[in-house]
Amino acid sequence: MSPARENWLLGQILRAIGNPPIRLVFRDGAGVAPPNVSPVATLTIQDRRTLAALLLDPEVAFGEAYAEGRIRVDGDLVRLLEEIYKSILSTAAASGLYSRLTSKWMELWQANSLRGSRHNIHRHYDLGNDFYKLWLDSELVYTCAYFPSTSATLEEAQRAKLDYVCRKVRLQPGESVVEAGCGWGALALHMARQYQVSVRAFNVSHEQIVFARRRARQEGLSHLVEFIEDDYRNISGKYDVFMSVGMLEHVGTAHYRELGNLIQRSVGDAGRGLLHFIGRNYPAPLSRWIRKRIFPGAYVPSLQQAMEILEPWNFAVQDVENLRYHYAKTLEHWLDRFERSENQIGSMYDSRFVRTWRLYLAGSLAAFRCGTLQLFQIVFAGSRCRPIFWTRAPLYAEAKPAIEKAAWIRAMS
Amino acid sequence: MSPARENWLLGQILRAIGNPPIRLVFRDGAGVAPPNVSPVATLTIQDRRTLAALLLDPEVAFGEAYAEGRIRVDGDLVRLLEEIYKSILSTAAASGLYSRLTSKWMELWQANSLRGSRHNIHRHYDLGNDFYKLWLDSELVYTCAYFPSTSATLEEAQRAKLDYVCRKVRLQPGESVVEAGCGWGALALHMARQYQVSVRAFNVSHEQIVFARRRARQEGLSHLVEFIEDDYRNISGKYDVFMSVGMLEHVGTAHYRELGNLIQRSVGDAGRGLLHFIGRNYPAPLSRWIRKRIFPGAYVPSLQQAMEILEPWNFAVQDVENLRYHYAKTLEHWLDRFERSENQIGSMYDSRFVRTWRLYLAGSLAAFRCGTLQLFQIVFAGSRCRPIFWTRAPLYAEAKPAIEKAAWIRAMS
Repeated sequence: MSPARENWLLGQILRAIGNPPIRLVFRDGAGVAPPNVSPVATLTIQDRRTLAALLLDPEVAFGEAYAEGRIRVDGDLVRLLEEIYKSILSTAAASGLYSRLTSKWMELWQANSLRGSRHNIHRHYDLGNDFYKLWLDSELVYTCAYFPSTSATLEEAQRAKLDYVCRKVRLQPGESVVEAGCGWGALALHMARQYQVSVRAFNVSHEQIVFARRRARQEGLSHLVEFIEDDYRNISGKYDVFMSVGMLEHVGTAHYRELGNLIQRSVGDAGRGLLHFIGRNYPAPLSRWIRKRIFPGAYVPSLQQAMEILEPWNFAVQDVENLRYHYAKTLEHWLDRFERSENQIGSMYDSRFVRTWRLYLAGSLAAFRCGTLQLFQIVFAGSRCRPIFWTRAPLYAEAKPAIEKAAWIRAMS
Repeated sequence: MSPARENWLLGQILRAIGNPPIRLVFRDGAGVAPPNVSPVATLTIQDRRTLAALLLDPEVAFGEAYAEGRIRVDGDLVRLLEEIYKSILSTAAASGLYSRLTSKWMELWQANSLRGSRHNIHRHYDLGNDFYKLWLDSELVYTCAYFPSTSATLEEAQRAKLDYVCRKVRLQPGESVVEAGCGWGALALHMARQYQVSVRAFNVSHEQIVFARRRARQEGLSHLVEFIEDDYRNISGKYDVFMSVGMLEHVGTAHYRELGNLIQRSVGDAGRGLLHFIGRNYPAPLSRWIRKRIFPGAYVPSLQQAMEILEPWNFAVQDVENLRYHYAKTLEHWLDRFERSENQIGSMYDSRFVRTWRLYLAGSLAAFRCGTLQLFQIVFAGSRCRPIFWTRAPLYAEAKPAIEKAAWIRAMS
């Protein structure tokens, strides 16, 4: 290939993604960039194989090449990804309906059988607690935080999130809660400690469950919190509240109706619950690279898809909140801590691992900033559930609302 | 028919609706009631024709017979309806999936063509402003109010609702708003008066538009608010914000995609908006009697159905709030004022009209109390819309948040 030919191919790539303000370079060439803009970063492709792969299958090839150092980024990686996402988004907008655009992807097979899920979860969450301790908050909360103000620390924001979801469902002392997908146990322990509720928390990640049980013992909360190493589909028993923070992403739309049935069996018509999950504005699959390297079997639904969980069982949606900017902020903290531990992570794994995870965190940050990903919290209630709040104002009162039956609940019942 | 035979039929009716705690009586008989409960009210069927109609087609026959005085209710009409709804709801619950139960109804034809809509709207909203003045608040707001506390008056609660929806979309002075379905103009005028925005407000009800225009002139707001007597489908122009409070019920699911397209054309990717509408937990038609006598062509969607408006156009749902208890409270006020004007309304129309509207208001109140109806407010934003709030806390701050660009918006942009 002559340099002119390569530059022509770079130009084709740039145009295909809608001419974002980035510079594309092949080896030590001059490269191409859209006219009249100053590029936010430079992306250098190191060899012909990578250039060809990017033309044929960019969705996977970009991640693979970045991880292997066959693509180099000079400048701000997050900004570069943001500009690419925004540019692809406007190209999609110009072509009309979003859902139509992506519907051809919808048939993709996702192996979230009982065994498949265990395998998928193991691959991501059992990478070792020591790894996650390097860049998550001190309580190891691996979901979107809630920043009461943008200057809150990650630790403060994760604690605020744990409390926010409890207050959203108005937990009362003595109630029972089932948690589907409990991570390292921070929410289950918070609910027991702060709200004196009993919790049964499910998770198929062995490392996480062992860690969570140890924490429960250390905190003297084992009598209130039971950590169960099992699939959410094996949840049994009756509870007042169903909680799931960051598990729906691993369920798959084919299992939504089954999940709804399980929630109905667990909390019945008098119960209530909360689903916290990464979502989308319209149905579309996660990037194939993310599913290959980071989250096998993962799918993030649109709200319309998520309603498949609740509508067949007459659950009333009480409240939906979109916290995508809070996830962007959370990811800024994670990425920052990750970068500061780069050497240590490199010595625990290898440089490919470091680059893979950097791209995953940076790409997620860019996606939440651009709105290609959203974060939804849905509060729902059964038809015989006592009303939770008259207005949402108590959720935002300076002082926490007293845990008591409000006069209006008595008046309505 | 022998009295025994009639009592057997009453027993059949009672069992079919799940044995609610009510007494069913034929003429001056002893009647039937479920054992071991004290009935909340007594429903007396006055003739054999009505008894037969109730067995054959209860959905329409009940309303017709009540309106014509062939059914008499002694005791609390709302409580009676509530118990019937709750009872039917648990019968449905026992039989499993809700949506499956009602799907056979979903094909019902709804004539919401341009001409059909005008006719349908005319029939309800052009009954005469004098009629609505008798039982609505002083500003004639014919949608769910927002009661900051349960002791707020209807006037306070309607004003609070008008302001709440403005604050939910964070209206800024100088912005432009298009309102689809503006009733008697209270929201359009509130937006112009309190937020110094320009408003184009659409409505096909002639009487309402004439009234709204007069108010705009009287208040000296004609330079900011333009009331247009036309169908929402004829909205043109570009705006910052799309507002629709209580119109979606008249649109029909077949037109949701078209409505979404219209919103996209109106506010684009940088815009935002609010949809306020009566909804359901799962798809089901309104009662045939309500559609025959009160709201021809009306349909209230589930959230899954409503998402058909937003998802094809990449609108991000920011916030969904369920205000069904606020609608119940609103209807308590309306029904109370209606009853106090019974004689006057009877002299304007006739006793059949009074009984028809009493049943509509009482039935709606019961439905919101039981959760067979919900009230959703959805705030949505285009992909390039500046974030509206960092958290919802400012919506509930004691003092109204100052209308200004928050520091965090500057920081994020």
